[in-house]
Amino acid sequence: MEFRIEKDSIGEKNVDKEVYYGVQSLRAYENFRISGLQVNENFIRDLALVKKACAIANLESNELDEKRGKAIIKACDEVCEGKLINQFITDPIQGGAGTSMNMNINEIIANRANEILGYEKGKNFPVHPNDHVNMGQSTNDVIPTAASITVYKLLDKCIKEVARLEKALLKKGIEFNSIIKMGRTEMQDAVPISLGSEFKAFARAIGRDSKRLNITKKNLEEVNLGGTAIGTGITANKSYIQNVAPTLSKLLGYNIYQSENLVDATQNLDKFSEISSQLKVCAINISKLSGDLILMSSGPRTGFGEIRLPAKQNGSSIMPGKVNPVMPELMKQISYQVIGNDVTITLAVQSGQLELNAFFPIIIFNLYQSINILTNGIKTFIDNCIDGIEVNKERCKELVEKSIGIVTALAPVLGYEKSAEIAKKALKTGRYIKEIIKEECEFSENEINNILNVKNMGKIVI
Amino acid sequence: MEFRIEKDSIGEKNVDKEVYYGVQSLRAYENFRISGLQVNENFIRDLALVKKACAIANLESNELDEKRGKAIIKACDEVCEGKLINQFITDPIQGGAGTSMNMNINEIIANRANEILGYEKGKNFPVHPNDHVNMGQSTNDVIPTAASITVYKLLDKCIKEVARLEKALLKKGIEFNSIIKMGRTEMQDAVPISLGSEFKAFARAIGRDSKRLNITKKNLEEVNLGGTAIGTGITANKSYIQNVAPTLSKLLGYNIYQSENLVDATQNLDKFSEISSQLKVCAINISKLSGDLILMSSGPRTGFGEIRLPAKQNGSSIMPGKVNPVMPELMKQISYQVIGNDVTITLAVQSGQLELNAFFPIIIFNLYQSINILTNGIKTFIDNCIDGIEVNKERCKELVEKSIGIVTALAPVLGYEKSAEIAKKALKTGRYIKEIIKEECEFSENEINNILNVKNMGKIVI
Amino acid sequence: MEFRIEKDSIGEKNVDKEVYYGVQSLRAYENFRISGLQVNENFIRDLALVKKACAIANLESNELDEKRGKAIIKACDEVCEGKLINQFITDPIQGGAGTSMNMNINEIIANRANEILGYEKGKNFPVHPNDHVNMGQSTNDVIPTAASITVYKLLDKCIKEVARLEKALLKKGIEFNSIIKMGRTEMQDAVPISLGSEFKAFARAIGRDSKRLNITKKNLEEVNLGGTAIGTGITANKSYIQNVAPTLSKLLGYNIYQSENLVDATQNLDKFSEISSQLKVCAINISKLSGDLILMSSGPRTGFGEIRLPAKQNGSSIMPGKVNPVMPELMKQISYQVIGNDVTITLAVQSGQLELNAFFPIIIFNLYQSINILTNGIKTFIDNCIDGIEVNKERCKELVEKSIGIVTALAPVLGYEKSAEIAKKALKTGRYIKEIIKEECEFSENEINNILNVKNMGKIVI
Amino acid sequence: MEFRIEKDSIGEKNVDKEVYYGVQSLRAYENFRISGLQVNENFIRDLALVKKACAIANLESNELDEKRGKAIIKACDEVCEGKLINQFITDPIQGGAGTSMNMNINEIIANRANEILGYEKGKNFPVHPNDHVNMGQSTNDVIPTAASITVYKLLDKCIKEVARLEKALLKKGIEFNSIIKMGRTEMQDAVPISLGSEFKAFARAIGRDSKRLNITKKNLEEVNLGGTAIGTGITANKSYIQNVAPTLSKLLGYNIYQSENLVDATQNLDKFSEISSQLKVCAINISKLSGDLILMSSGPRTGFGEIRLPAKQNGSSIMPGKVNPVMPELMKQISYQVIGNDVTITLAVQSGQLELNAFFPIIIFNLYQSINILTNGIKTFIDNCIDGIEVNKERCKELVEKSIGIVTALAPVLGYEKSAEIAKKALKTGRYIKEIIKEECEFSENEINNILNVKNMGKIVI
Repeated sequence: MEFRIEKDSIGEKNVDKEVYYGVQSLRAYENFRISGLQVNENFIRDLALVKKACAIANLESNELDEKRGKAIIKACDEVCEGKLINQFITDPIQGGAGTSMNMNINEIIANRANEILGYEKGKNFPVHPNDHVNMGQSTNDVIPTAASITVYKLLDKCIKEVARLEKALLKKGIEFNSIIKMGRTEMQDAVPISLGSEFKAFARAIGRDSKRLNITKKNLEEVNLGGTAIGTGITANKSYIQNVAPTLSKLLGYNIYQSENLVDATQNLDKFSEISSQLKVCAINISKLSGDLILMSSGPRTGFGEIRLPAKQNGSSIMPGKVNPVMPELMKQISYQVIGNDVTITLAVQSGQLELNAFFPIIIFNLYQSINILTNGIKTFIDNCIDGIEVNKERCKELVEKSIGIVTALAPVLGYEKSAEIAKKALKTGRYIKEIIKEECEFSENEINNILNVKNMGKIVI
Repeated sequence: MEFRIEKDSIGEKNVDKEVYYGVQSLRAYENFRISGLQVNENFIRDLALVKKACAIANLESNELDEKRGKAIIKACDEVCEGKLINQFITDPIQGGAGTSMNMNINEIIANRANEILGYEKGKNFPVHPNDHVNMGQSTNDVIPTAASITVYKLLDKCIKEVARLEKALLKKGIEFNSIIKMGRTEMQDAVPISLGSEFKAFARAIGRDSKRLNITKKNLEEVNLGGTAIGTGITANKSYIQNVAPTLSKLLGYNIYQSENLVDATQNLDKFSEISSQLKVCAINISKLSGDLILMSSGPRTGFGEIRLPAKQNGSSIMPGKVNPVMPELMKQISYQVIGNDVTITLAVQSGQLELNAFFPIIIFNLYQSINILTNGIKTFIDNCIDGIEVNKERCKELVEKSIGIVTALAPVLGYEKSAEIAKKALKTGRYIKEIIKEECEFSENEINNILNVKNMGKIVI
Repeated sequence: MEFRIEKDSIGEKNVDKEVYYGVQSLRAYENFRISGLQVNENFIRDLALVKKACAIANLESNELDEKRGKAIIKACDEVCEGKLINQFITDPIQGGAGTSMNMNINEIIANRANEILGYEKGKNFPVHPNDHVNMGQSTNDVIPTAASITVYKLLDKCIKEVARLEKALLKKGIEFNSIIKMGRTEMQDAVPISLGSEFKAFARAIGRDSKRLNITKKNLEEVNLGGTAIGTGITANKSYIQNVAPTLSKLLGYNIYQSENLVDATQNLDKFSEISSQLKVCAINISKLSGDLILMSSGPRTGFGEIRLPAKQNGSSIMPGKVNPVMPELMKQISYQVIGNDVTITLAVQSGQLELNAFFPIIIFNLYQSINILTNGIKTFIDNCIDGIEVNKERCKELVEKSIGIVTALAPVLGYEKSAEIAKKALKTGRYIKEIIKEECEFSENEINNILNVKNMGKIVI
Repeated sequence: MEFRIEKDSIGEKNVDKEVYYGVQSLRAYENFRISGLQVNENFIRDLALVKKACAIANLESNELDEKRGKAIIKACDEVCEGKLINQFITDPIQGGAGTSMNMNINEIIANRANEILGYEKGKNFPVHPNDHVNMGQSTNDVIPTAASITVYKLLDKCIKEVARLEKALLKKGIEFNSIIKMGRTEMQDAVPISLGSEFKAFARAIGRDSKRLNITKKNLEEVNLGGTAIGTGITANKSYIQNVAPTLSKLLGYNIYQSENLVDATQNLDKFSEISSQLKVCAINISKLSGDLILMSSGPRTGFGEIRLPAKQNGSSIMPGKVNPVMPELMKQISYQVIGNDVTITLAVQSGQLELNAFFPIIIFNLYQSINILTNGIKTFIDNCIDGIEVNKERCKELVEKSIGIVTALAPVLGYEKSAEIAKKALKTGRYIKEIIKEECEFSENEINNILNVKNMGKIVI
């Protein structure tokens, strides 16, 4: 490997001659070998897009000359297209509030721009990573702005899957509308309910998640671009500050706008915490419904056995024929991860100090992961589980008929205490509720059938 | 103590002759001696109000006769006025999804109603706690409904304090507008900022909290009253189901409405989790700003010393004259409690199974606490801290002038690398930035004063 | 109410003439009206004991004269006996690292000592709360020391209950040894197991908790008493510093010792975090086993129905005869609270700054609660649930026999693939495994009975 | 790409002809495309080692013939050496309790063994992935056993770094022993302390972490290998069960042993939760000490400025010359991640149901990450931060001398109230404590110098 020598405030350093990153990226790489992972690729592209918008705004404000400006824009375009991604070498877990990420992209773009202009890499000339690529910018405004975009786009995909899940559940709700099964509260036999109602209830909960995520997504349209170091806009040209957000908006194809209080927008990261929280609430609903699927499909012979989840793989390496509820298990685990990530994000967001939150890298690392695993998880959950759920009608019917909970329908007629007596007798003797009522109460066959009509019981009264 | 003998499905039991609660409350009391605390008093009153609405709706549906109905209503009114609260003996931490709370109020009201009607306590006659007080109801709809009301009202008070905090911070923001101080990022000297901008940024963050809480509060207007056991409305009269929510609405003085999907509203508690999450986000902002106050008021001699918090009590039992930032410390602790409570609520909400979440008691126990300590904390925080914050002008000025960070203003003129050299030289020699620029650069005195005008630097560019 | 006028650094203030607390307690009371609760009574007594030990050590070092010393000791004794507890008026959630708690006890003891000596309350003479009661002490050493004692003693009680739970589970393990039931993995029928093995497994997990808690309890024997403000012992007499911990040890009746590094012991609170974490691990085991009890007792007709938990109260206000698993539900909620409290404690402990952790009050508030609710919960859990668990033998037997999972025993003989085929066939046709084997395989009746002997299957191989 | 057709219970599927994994791995890959990451490589190797031990034990029990056995062992050896790692295609986040991981390795080894024996891949002959590679095993024992080994080894490395950190801090403690600086409690000037004492206190806290981790590591020596599906050992040969753990022990080079209660060891995962908790406590100490480094190095001109952290990279893309405390910032973020991961692990461990915890994959995913980022983080923290910390002696001295807190040393002589007056006067007038004492008290110069000797004050009394 041949090297070039680069220099920064810390000193000189050998850098591989071929690479586009520079000495600052390399120092960061060496300082932070933590997770072994790469920074989210979507974020790298979005960061390049932000850099492009800044270059355009600087050009239009005459801060940047056309030669340099155009080369920078071209280099940004290449990164946006997915080139040079492997030159982004800094670990997603890093100190310094994102400066290493920012300098990594600054160096890549500067070197590539210089190359485009016919100069050598590693000389910072004519395009300088700080003076030109980072012109009018600070880590503290470009990184959160790019992250807002990435989260916005990822969230968009996530919401689509959440909405698709709502629909898939609703479809099952309609399909299972006429299936009466036993409802259970506190895992004890309660009163009959339609299986359809259960799925419709799941659907409605997930529908709230989709709404919640859509609302919180809107907060990401506000960015702090133009605020530079601490929100005062120091070093940036006034007209640049005014133009940069609209310029970025045009490139993006959806609306973003500059915060009216850039100081606040730079130091307070509650919007990211809100997003993580709402993802957490979604995870909670998904965990609950996954647990219910595991319960209802338990068996096949010694559990509830009311529904069958599609068999997607052998369930056991030792027990032949076993099929496990792998999809709801997956979703529970994803939910737990999202919940834990929310705690990490909580800790990081509340630890901001004065003009900045230095812990932004860990915040977005967790937020990207939460959104991605939720999106990917829901996708496979729908396709490989929800859509294929089948009901075991006979089992549902059998369980309702032998249940004791149907005695509840008698309470308005016989009173709570008498009804409880009947229930206890049925339980003790192992007999059916209906039989005991026949013996003990002066109802006609017709009346009994009417009161204990489970079809009616399972329906919603109004 | 004289006893009466009461009986339920479990068997007979001695109950103090004088008390209004009955055998079921007593069993619950004995089963759950956990926290030693009483259930939130506001909730007990709201639960009585719900019971009243149910009685009215049952009366109007002719399910309940007038004699019993009126007596029940009168008994409810008494509890709403704060009487008989000490008869609520069940621990807030309890198994059974709230059934013990529900039976406790049912027994109190039945006994009191019977007394009003001239009968003895403990006989369940003519008013029966289950058949009449609990008519058309289940723990599973009345308890969440009452809790929704309590949380709504508590949240209302909380939001008022949050909004008052926003105003108090904004007022300080205006007061301190012309004070230029050193901004710090990652706790290192950055560039100047107005102290007013810092407080305005705090205010804006808290303003978002107030909005967030208002939005999430709306979710509490939807209740599952009328759904009885699992949301199907079993045992309840149709017209009762239709009237009960509007009836309650009238008694409340604000709008609540029955969920369009009572099955969902009974088993999925995500709305409570969302509230807790938004309280958590508020706690995060408060924790961050409290930390900043601790930093800025650190000293008086060996810290930042830029602001002075009002001295509200001696800071130390051993160090004379010491005054500590007790109010922000308080707020940080309250924030940590709210954050931890959110984890408890998360665990409980996601653990719901099928038609019910059995863990409702711990959810509201934590939610009530989070809201109350936040409300009380913010109140004293405003009155005993924020309103009395003073600035140490000289200190702010001195720190800005001797800072190195102001070199940033030179970067657009001299370039990043040259500016960094000057910064390093200043640091090494212990000299002022201005002096070194005079020596090293060909600026006139005027130009230097212009570029390094901290008043301008601290202002927001646009 | 008559008042006396008291004065401190902040100024003058009216104090009720009758009370033993003074101006500083009153300020703290007014500043911190947060939770409405009282500080843990055990802690108040233990704090008085620490004060007594300090007075003795000061007496013996001749720092304190005999007259004052004896009066202070007498006053401490009274608090230890439970007197004057209602004079402790500061809220457990408070700013200031515990100074308000310390001054509250200092003022109570000083006023009572002065009264004993025939002087008036409120004059700080001849016994002064700071100069004499707090002599050689700081909030920063007495409060953590007293808290260590309180936690130690509470933990002791907790461990006793944990150990009792282990025994109760083991007893059930032995009782149920011969009951073969279906084992389930991922909630799907797996292979047979003895119900006794399940309870023995629970017992062993709880046994680990008991060991863990005992180990972590030992850390509480190290205290920072003698370190005064920051661990250097400033203001304290050397011989006092050496004697105070042994003196306290004697009063306590168990061994405590002074940390060899008082600076560390004053600022780093990881031992409290470790205790909370180990309580959390215990909560995790209890939550898991409670969930299992809920599953196994689900039914009575439409669930697993393998065991019956004792009926301790009516399960429903609407559904007659319903009995719910209130005890495991209780334990799950307590577990969730302990887990959430651990997050609060985590946040507070990691937020310590330099020579002190200002957030000690919230740490002990949560730690006391976690230990208490766990102790109280386990107690009722054993007495009202575990000890009374009964098995439904017929149900266990029936489920094993109709299960498909027993096919696993054939895999070593027939191979995984052939066995899987048999399993699928059984499932599809609804028939018993045994029947299909008879048809498809060339085994004798004897061989089949031998291989599919569920008694053997349920036993542990070695 | 050419395909071979493979078949399992679910049906037929095309598998790339060249690959070593099979149909079951492929299904799992397609079902779970969640994180996009690979399973931890160390774990894959350790799993292969477990498989080797099982093969040896099966060979010795004559369950496995020599031809197959040797081929399996050879294939395992290759994976242990790092070959075929890329054939491990299942996502670390997966449903099914690890069955997909287990089948992935079973298929790789079977196919490679068959190749070694001269047969084709994809035929499951003569070596069958379930019948031979997985012989006497279940996912439920091999996966936790392999994970225990991986965690043990990773923890070992982590503990080495933790111990190295302790030493590095202690070394600084000794180096800075004679530097007296101002101690601060609640961020307010307290009393003097030696900078060395501060670092020794850090060292002692980290020393406790190292002990804690060593103790918890021991728990990993107990494995459930031999328990097969649910801990009863079903399908496994008795002598295999007895030999397999000792066999594995020999291969490992450190001691592991079979749990005496395999049922418990299979279903209760509290040992993993305990490890995560102790890592969390370590993270708490590291977070606290990192925060202190950020505080003490704050400045360089407008903060505490008592110490200088080594400059490892440019601190800002916009502010020239800025150097940030990137290493402690990194460590804080790592700590937050470890804390959040602990919540995820808590949720997963407490969610175990009956004979198994289905959520094992997410548990080890988080545990591996926590240990790795902590290990990597501490490494760079020591090398790039701690070892290079320098003190600013003049600054430390200056701050002590102008501080007011030193008045504390007067309290035993003058009393708390008089001392507080002096402190207030100094603060109000901006003068030095010493000057005011000279005026107000009748001390000789010598006496004053003696009492206010900060060197003495900073030292620990005994």
